[in-house]
Amino acid sequence: MTINVRELKTLREEVLAANLELSRLGLALFTWGNASAIDRERGLVVIKPSGVPYETMTAEDMVVVDMEGRPVGGGLKPSSDLPTHLALYKAFPLAAGIVHTHSTYATAWAQAGLDLPAEGTTHADHFYGPVPCTRCLGDAEIAGDYERETGNVIVETFRNRGIDPASVPAVIVHSHGPFCWGTSAMDAVHNAAVLENVAKMAILSRMALGRAPSPMQQSLLARHFERKHGKNAYYGQK
Amino acid sequence: MTINVRELKTLREEVLAANLELSRLGLALFTWGNASAIDRERGLVVIKPSGVPYETMTAEDMVVVDMEGRPVGGGLKPSSDLPTHLALYKAFPLAAGIVHTHSTYATAWAQAGLDLPAEGTTHADHFYGPVPCTRCLGDAEIAGDYERETGNVIVETFRNRGIDPASVPAVIVHSHGPFCWGTSAMDAVHNAAVLENVAKMAILSRMALGRAPSPMQQSLLARHFERKHGKNAYYGQK
Amino acid sequence: MTINVRELKTLREEVLAANLELSRLGLALFTWGNASAIDRERGLVVIKPSGVPYETMTAEDMVVVDMEGRPVGGGLKPSSDLPTHLALYKAFPLAAGIVHTHSTYATAWAQAGLDLPAEGTTHADHFYGPVPCTRCLGDAEIAGDYERETGNVIVETFRNRGIDPASVPAVIVHSHGPFCWGTSAMDAVHNAAVLENVAKMAILSRMALGRAPSPMQQSLLARHFERKHGKNAYYGQK
Amino acid sequence: MTINVRELKTLREEVLAANLELSRLGLALFTWGNASAIDRERGLVVIKPSGVPYETMTAEDMVVVDMEGRPVGGGLKPSSDLPTHLALYKAFPLAAGIVHTHSTYATAWAQAGLDLPAEGTTHADHFYGPVPCTRCLGDAEIAGDYERETGNVIVETFRNRGIDPASVPAVIVHSHGPFCWGTSAMDAVHNAAVLENVAKMAILSRMALGRAPSPMQQSLLARHFERKHGKNAYYGQK
Repeated sequence: MTINVRELKTLREEVLAANLELSRLGLALFTWGNASAIDRERGLVVIKPSGVPYETMTAEDMVVVDMEGRPVGGGLKPSSDLPTHLALYKAFPLAAGIVHTHSTYATAWAQAGLDLPAEGTTHADHFYGPVPCTRCLGDAEIAGDYERETGNVIVETFRNRGIDPASVPAVIVHSHGPFCWGTSAMDAVHNAAVLENVAKMAILSRMALGRAPSPMQQSLLARHFERKHGKNAYYGQK
Repeated sequence: MTINVRELKTLREEVLAANLELSRLGLALFTWGNASAIDRERGLVVIKPSGVPYETMTAEDMVVVDMEGRPVGGGLKPSSDLPTHLALYKAFPLAAGIVHTHSTYATAWAQAGLDLPAEGTTHADHFYGPVPCTRCLGDAEIAGDYERETGNVIVETFRNRGIDPASVPAVIVHSHGPFCWGTSAMDAVHNAAVLENVAKMAILSRMALGRAPSPMQQSLLARHFERKHGKNAYYGQK
Repeated sequence: MTINVRELKTLREEVLAANLELSRLGLALFTWGNASAIDRERGLVVIKPSGVPYETMTAEDMVVVDMEGRPVGGGLKPSSDLPTHLALYKAFPLAAGIVHTHSTYATAWAQAGLDLPAEGTTHADHFYGPVPCTRCLGDAEIAGDYERETGNVIVETFRNRGIDPASVPAVIVHSHGPFCWGTSAMDAVHNAAVLENVAKMAILSRMALGRAPSPMQQSLLARHFERKHGKNAYYGQK
Repeated sequence: MTINVRELKTLREEVLAANLELSRLGLALFTWGNASAIDRERGLVVIKPSGVPYETMTAEDMVVVDMEGRPVGGGLKPSSDLPTHLALYKAFPLAAGIVHTHSTYATAWAQAGLDLPAEGTTHADHFYGPVPCTRCLGDAEIAGDYERETGNVIVETFRNRGIDPASVPAVIVHSHGPFCWGTSAMDAVHNAAVLENVAKMAILSRMALGRAPSPMQQSLLARHFERKHGKNAYYGQK
């Protein structure tokens, strides 16, 4: 397969911008995060290179791979989390961009091994229900194709629990941290920032109350999600 | 009704400045906040447009509406929270500016569903007693004219509990977040910043003590509020 | 009494610098803090004016008063907390500068009504033992000469508990916040910054452990305080 | 012993850069931190001077000492924590740089007197198991050669518990704070920043869950540590 890499120039620049935004928003310290985007027509994914500092990355450093993770056009090694991204792109056709971070508050929920419950309208404006936490991977999954299994357990979580990845564009991987997706790499970054913020609010609400608050009313959850994302949405200038 | 929009130029600029200050103070991430001001003589309200990023907003983007929320002079769609602002302007004649945020610590109290108690002089310097948390809205209120009902439940809270909105210029809406008002849009922003700060202090005082502290003494609450806001106030250069 | 105000130019500039540093270090939001210094030879105190924003303050705005709080040479109204500063200058001859803040973590301890215990060497490097919390003021003290009574209860706390204000240059006023002192206004600011930091550490140590840790060993407390402040101090370039 | 100080110019600059990075990353307030590096061929250590503000330090201010702490070539007094650094350089041959801080969250764990458990992959990417907390020093150790005893108790902790300092390049000194090491002074700074971050995550995971979470799976700990640091490491561009 030959590829005119120049044609992916825009996507590379978008992926670079998304990775830099992760760092700028404080969601990724050092190299602890990665953003990717997909060109579904060509079946190509552009992702951050592995372990390269944000300060010196250029659009040309972004790595192009096919849907099996094979490098296209040479260049740097892709993020080691690439197989997770690929598994999600295959299972969630709506995902045009994916982001992984170790952002502090969302990762605290991962370490607690808990779903992030919907407790207020900030959450409901972006996630239609709890952001699920996956089960722990088994030892064989960890010893095997670990990064792909991480993608598989995310997909399993959404399928088994009947969660629509378009309505809840984020997940918490047990003992690890969040993955988020969206309509572009930058939209996935936005969802990662929202997740971090509501993860912080939910920790603080426990501290204010001395215990976990009740989840919010279903009717309020639906109203807020629908007013922004439903077919009769009336938020914004659309 | 014809309106000389230029005459509202100053108010639009004040409302823009208040919205930008919300962002600058860290009280509003992305588009999660809105500030408005009222010209009571003309019966006109100026408010932030819905879902427009702070980075690119201009004074001309600010939206002018009448007291029923009808657009005056065209332009962008107003914030979807406009009906809440209007309900408060109608019920609280002292309010010249109103601010809504999802600021992190105040929203944690909203998610906990608790009044923010008066526990120290920082609180007492600005709020004469607890900042009340509203009841949950009923399903019919949520399904109906939701944003106006949000305003109504705030007004109901102050009336039923006999709280003077001039002495406690802030409220916590259950499962949602704070609304604050003041003698101008910028004064409302100031109250929102104070609220966020005392919301943080109250969470931390629980962490220090291991449980909720007692509310402060009534005599100390009164002394501090009066020395800044009473008729014999002696704080500041007045 | 006539006074050559120019002669106090340096002290005014020091007091201005200390007040600005309070703001820069995040210890004072809006106008919630004040710093002063004393010229003991002349019996004059220089203090921040009341309610003036940090952004626009100049050295000339700093207010000069005598030991009874009477203005010397005109100008703005002094900080309403002046009588507390004066009571401390009178009782603690070592204090050359005093700072009051509502810094977030120290104020949380004030709202909890607890001494800040010595739990680690960061604390021991600066405070030889717990930073005491005063008793609550009585209603008559609050209704009377309130700011002077605040000074009195601080002095009472140190006297009754036999604490040397040279070894513990800070106090937590119940339901209010910290006062700190030092060998200059800027040294008092430094102590206020240290206090805020150790107040934060002590809250976090409770969260790590799930309860209050034991106080540190007396021998470690003494070693650290003495290596910086004792007569055989060996920290720094002295 | 004569020494051509110019030959250590690069090491001095690295040590200066590491000290400044400690301050820039918010790991060291005021003068509360120090970084050093070793030239093992010559048996010389370069360390920050004691109590000198970060703002004004130059590479020439960095102090050169031999392995017994004797000054080489004159200059300022070394950090009072030098004997701790020397004890660690002697016991841990892999350490080329050492850092000590009072960073807020790691110090909270020191005050709690607890190991920092491995609860997630952020931790596992850098530390192969819990970061140990030392025992308290005895009164005689504190009254004696205190800073060297601090180094000794760290070495004792790793030996008694069979922890490899190459796999866990950090320790928490009871009632005090962290020491970290690495393949250079800047690598030690990096480990100090990681430690602070995972110390924060572990406190927050307790807040989310209401109690301490279980440690992470051993298989996941091993997988993440090995993918970055093992002989078949596949993270980064190597």
